[in-house]
Amino acid sequence: MTEQYELLEPEKVAAYIDAHPDLAARVDTSTLDVTEVGDGNLNLVFVCQDGSGRGLVLKQALPYVRLVGPSWPFTPKRAVAEARAYEVHGRFAAEYLPAFYGFDAARYILAMEDLTDHRVWRGALTDGERHDGAAADIGRYVARVAFHTGVFGVEAKALKALVAGAISPELCEITEDLVLTEPFSGAERNWYQDELEDAARSLQTPELKAAAGELKYAFMTRAEALLHGDLHTGSVMVREGSTRAFDSEFAFYGPIAFDLALPWSNFVVTMARDAVLGRDEHGAWAATLFEELWDAFEAEFRSLWPNVVDPRVYNELFLERWLAQTQRDTAAFAATEAARRIVGLAHAPDLEALDPEPRAVAGRAVIETVKRLLLDRPETAAEVSAVAREEVARG
Amino acid sequence: MTEQYELLEPEKVAAYIDAHPDLAARVDTSTLDVTEVGDGNLNLVFVCQDGSGRGLVLKQALPYVRLVGPSWPFTPKRAVAEARAYEVHGRFAAEYLPAFYGFDAARYILAMEDLTDHRVWRGALTDGERHDGAAADIGRYVARVAFHTGVFGVEAKALKALVAGAISPELCEITEDLVLTEPFSGAERNWYQDELEDAARSLQTPELKAAAGELKYAFMTRAEALLHGDLHTGSVMVREGSTRAFDSEFAFYGPIAFDLALPWSNFVVTMARDAVLGRDEHGAWAATLFEELWDAFEAEFRSLWPNVVDPRVYNELFLERWLAQTQRDTAAFAATEAARRIVGLAHAPDLEALDPEPRAVAGRAVIETVKRLLLDRPETAAEVSAVAREEVARG
Repeated sequence: MTEQYELLEPEKVAAYIDAHPDLAARVDTSTLDVTEVGDGNLNLVFVCQDGSGRGLVLKQALPYVRLVGPSWPFTPKRAVAEARAYEVHGRFAAEYLPAFYGFDAARYILAMEDLTDHRVWRGALTDGERHDGAAADIGRYVARVAFHTGVFGVEAKALKALVAGAISPELCEITEDLVLTEPFSGAERNWYQDELEDAARSLQTPELKAAAGELKYAFMTRAEALLHGDLHTGSVMVREGSTRAFDSEFAFYGPIAFDLALPWSNFVVTMARDAVLGRDEHGAWAATLFEELWDAFEAEFRSLWPNVVDPRVYNELFLERWLAQTQRDTAAFAATEAARRIVGLAHAPDLEALDPEPRAVAGRAVIETVKRLLLDRPETAAEVSAVAREEVARG
Repeated sequence: MTEQYELLEPEKVAAYIDAHPDLAARVDTSTLDVTEVGDGNLNLVFVCQDGSGRGLVLKQALPYVRLVGPSWPFTPKRAVAEARAYEVHGRFAAEYLPAFYGFDAARYILAMEDLTDHRVWRGALTDGERHDGAAADIGRYVARVAFHTGVFGVEAKALKALVAGAISPELCEITEDLVLTEPFSGAERNWYQDELEDAARSLQTPELKAAAGELKYAFMTRAEALLHGDLHTGSVMVREGSTRAFDSEFAFYGPIAFDLALPWSNFVVTMARDAVLGRDEHGAWAATLFEELWDAFEAEFRSLWPNVVDPRVYNELFLERWLAQTQRDTAAFAATEAARRIVGLAHAPDLEALDPEPRAVAGRAVIETVKRLLLDRPETAAEVSAVAREEVARG
């Protein structure tokens, strides 16, 4: 059943802010300029800026997919998950998140920092921009969150209550289906260019299905840390010297490698796009991002390790093995996310805007990379980058 | 803080039963004979039998360890976990459990079938008895529960609520500490024969700590199915043609291999005892139980597989790999449980009743088996049995 609550409208935003003293202290509502910038389909997003340049953003979850209407309800509880993630992640990694100003649980409205001076990382990569250090920032963000919200940073009994409290069945199901199943099983809602028919079908072998099954099983059973849960480059804002992860609606306790994998999968897509556009320098730079992200994750995680809450059997040798396993799992999860961006329901604009012929070449390179990541199982960021470089060069 | 509730006493049992019509219908309280048979330290257990031979058992959890008193509180919530396990497991594997007659949540009293015509499997093995088929029954029990309460048998969204509802932090911590940490890290409360000092210390290498860490991490993060959670041979009753698992106070969502591992660890201990007693025939029989249990588990699991709720990527190849991985994990978890029975806080009477010299020989054989299971990583029940046979023959 669709939940009923009052939706915000631009002309009512100032009054809403005035009614919430914590927010009213941040902007002068008498000079407020309000712009709705969400896609309006799943969330309403109001950028609020006053005459003196101060601002904040209000984001309200809709209880249904607006394009379809109330007949496709979509739980607004995802805003609870996002608020939880900002609140919990903010304790350990505030510099990598928008400042969080509060959550209105009755109307599913999040209030947070105005980051309109940043741009979405996906768009920047698509345009051929370089943001040096963004990948490393995300690596450090995941490391902090992974350490401080999981087995190594939280006392065992307390952790169990956190895990139980952060379940998110509806949102997890979306990832389970769209990322970890449908690209490999086929589905009515899959779509892709006609030219990619053979490539898409080549993903549906028993061997690749089993590999996807293994990752899906890990996603469904391994509660390692409070993940962002949807950390693709469209969930990251960048600006010189600043990297912020947002849109953590998919937050839940899952396998840490999944958060590392989504940016990796985007680097593959960026490389494929750069290759067909002849943007060699940018492509070569994108190929370095796998290691930039992983190395920063690993260094940050190692720096936190001396604080492990239970060092009795979580020793140095365990840490080495755990890091190696997490790196392997990252490569495999990255493959599933890359696959869905070519053949699944939810593509990303990186390749969609290309002309049909280069678009098909790029799509095929991504698919071939996916298959090698799942069948050959490269173990390190460098090996994953090498596989992607080989496949996009084949074009 | 210790919970306050009224404890049962033998002379008040008949009145208690009369006050509960479901129970009163099962026995004639006017001719009731009540015997308290629990160790009286953690639980009160009343066997109630009437003049016509009908009976039932009441089990009440104490809120503290009676030997120490209220200064060592011990959550009676474990009775909730046990009731949940009987109720849930009973839907799929009733023939391997005591019939469950209900739970009094206010006083933490479980009512169940009187199984005094059975005996505890540990005792039977210790005495050199053979109960053919008991190991296979336990394998089938674990298979049913694993399939029907986990990813393969429960729809994804419903499963997440089940997992969250079955958290059991205090009881899990006991296993995490006593089984998966202390034998390998050393602990004040570890104890063992003086003769085993070197063997006990040999468990505390970085390599074995890391192996224990890996298993502990799996135990703490992998929510695969609603486990029994403490399925050693002291939690199993046997009689010709009947095998019943009880005492599921440790039930929680964890790695399936853990439930398979505890009986395996007991088979190692039984073999070590048989060897020093020269009970070769019984020892050779015990060596077959690893495969008996595993093969029954695997066959039952395969028979359920066609009902997998989501066959899209959980295909046949996935199943083969999942079974192989589960078998490997079983061997490793078995090692940790075997180790704690020699050097940890909670030994079992299997070896403790031996004379000091054979007891040390048997203990050493178990320790050497533990080390090989964790370092050489045998992959199958047959290989685990072979390792245990070699080590107990060395004595």
